[in-house]
Amino acid sequence: MTASAQSTRIDFSELEALLATIFERHGTSPEVARTLANNCASAQRDGALSHGVFRIPGYLSTLKSGWVNGQAVPSVEDVAPGFVTVDAGNGFAQPALAAAHNLMLKKARANGIAMLAVRNSHHFAALWPDVEPYAREGLVALAFVNSMACVVPFGGKKPLFGTNPISFAAPRAHSDPLVFDLATSAMAHGDVQIAAREERTLPRGCGVDADGKPTTDPAAILNGGALLPFGGHKGSALSMMVELLAAALTGGNFSFEFDWSPYPGAKTPWTGELVIVIDPSRGAGSDFAKRVETLVQEMEWAGQTRQPGDKRYQQRAEAMANGVVIGADELAHLRELAKVPG
Amino acid sequence: MTASAQSTRIDFSELEALLATIFERHGTSPEVARTLANNCASAQRDGALSHGVFRIPGYLSTLKSGWVNGQAVPSVEDVAPGFVTVDAGNGFAQPALAAAHNLMLKKARANGIAMLAVRNSHHFAALWPDVEPYAREGLVALAFVNSMACVVPFGGKKPLFGTNPISFAAPRAHSDPLVFDLATSAMAHGDVQIAAREERTLPRGCGVDADGKPTTDPAAILNGGALLPFGGHKGSALSMMVELLAAALTGGNFSFEFDWSPYPGAKTPWTGELVIVIDPSRGAGSDFAKRVETLVQEMEWAGQTRQPGDKRYQQRAEAMANGVVIGADELAHLRELAKVPG
Repeated sequence: MTASAQSTRIDFSELEALLATIFERHGTSPEVARTLANNCASAQRDGALSHGVFRIPGYLSTLKSGWVNGQAVPSVEDVAPGFVTVDAGNGFAQPALAAAHNLMLKKARANGIAMLAVRNSHHFAALWPDVEPYAREGLVALAFVNSMACVVPFGGKKPLFGTNPISFAAPRAHSDPLVFDLATSAMAHGDVQIAAREERTLPRGCGVDADGKPTTDPAAILNGGALLPFGGHKGSALSMMVELLAAALTGGNFSFEFDWSPYPGAKTPWTGELVIVIDPSRGAGSDFAKRVETLVQEMEWAGQTRQPGDKRYQQRAEAMANGVVIGADELAHLRELAKVPG
Repeated sequence: MTASAQSTRIDFSELEALLATIFERHGTSPEVARTLANNCASAQRDGALSHGVFRIPGYLSTLKSGWVNGQAVPSVEDVAPGFVTVDAGNGFAQPALAAAHNLMLKKARANGIAMLAVRNSHHFAALWPDVEPYAREGLVALAFVNSMACVVPFGGKKPLFGTNPISFAAPRAHSDPLVFDLATSAMAHGDVQIAAREERTLPRGCGVDADGKPTTDPAAILNGGALLPFGGHKGSALSMMVELLAAALTGGNFSFEFDWSPYPGAKTPWTGELVIVIDPSRGAGSDFAKRVETLVQEMEWAGQTRQPGDKRYQQRAEAMANGVVIGADELAHLRELAKVPG
């Protein structure tokens, strides 16, 4: 929460429309603009600020550079009863996910489990928006996305993995879904950028500088340094798994494979994404959503008062009632960006 | 490696046969005996000592207590094109996995992805043996198993989750599969038991004592204390996910739900297990095993010299050539156990 004294509020739908206008004026198709605007406005609304309007300059400089195709039309292929692939056409991942969504619902329900493999895509957003909608349909979803080389494997010396998040969503019988989205790096890249901008130091163990030495300076991590995996060799193994699922399995790039140097201003990782969707109603766990409530109740009794996703839902409810909090300067800048001729 | 001065060696097949005799003499069916003996001997062979013959007393006291059914015949049900369930009949998980193995291979290849949900089962072994065989068939596999309440959720006060490991296996084009098996607790329970037996202290951050205070004493963790998740809130979220996948989704017990107090000597958790198997050849990642080699090569260049599973394969090769290392006293004790009339 960086916006305080100079913050203002904007209706969610107005923010969404404003961002859509910006995307379209900066080179995306209307459909891509709508999808990205909803995604980015949702992150801002839910207090996931490192994926909110903070990301707009990165989106626009990438579009301007020609690195990503904002007009791409995803190509969906039904390759097996439980397997959908999408060639995102060097576009963003979210329109690719949206294009396959209904087919994935159908396949998960028919087969018990289904898998969506997106390749040739750019993911520059939070991962929870990719799984939460499935849980709202009563399904369980897991997503994996790799990004760009900025994490040193455990025991290694140079960055290789991306921040490589894993996201999980499960429906609850009497509440919003249980959803987590965790970077397998010690910290998310957007949070390091925000800390650098605010000149804050980081906790120990998050990263190394350009000489491979431990540092708490976010600028040192961003300028030639690297992040570390969370949880030592275990986080590193999970990050490796994300590379294999999101890139090797989908036919996308590993986090270290793409070269954007001919595209100054490019910020988005050109990789792949894997989503697994499960229909719990087909097996012996058909009371799944009630069982999730049982586990959550027990976690609360054990003293864990806040469940994964709770903070986002609280901020979402508050923002839907009172407007989305945004920096006044940020909003003014967005309004200027929306005036650029398309 | 605890066996040194008093260690001896035994041929793998002889150890397997010895363990099978012991299991059968202590109440299992010949089929269950063969499966458990292969599993336990494999762990000893690969240097995974916390799941090797160290576990035999726990297996036998559990069988004696009547808590587990060593004669159980797993009931396999084909519930959807990509979904197999098994009621393990209050028996061990490994015979249930074996009973569904061929059906899972067929379903994964036909559908691109398939899921095996085992319930009413006891898992007292390592998790990597459940996924490695799929990778040897060219498939990718993920397994999740919950256990017994011994891990405090992040921010909580009392144990609720099990050690809840996640295991992953991926085929490599020119080498043994890449396989990891990681407890989502800061330490595996078997390793805490071994440390207690050897009166070693643990690294900080592994667990708490009966008062909920941090401790490095393994005995304090085992006697009323608890383990912590690895990696703070992220490991805790993954452990929660394992409870949901391995128990809620399968129709098994959560780690905190079963009560073995009427069965003195019982040691095995009565829960469930989920296995997801993927056929990479169906999508755009059909050169998957070669791509895994590319990633491994890059990890080596980045300075990570040992890959997940390497240590096990090295010890396996050595043990197959020269015999499995085992304590001389342990082996003598096993030979006595094999003499018990069935």
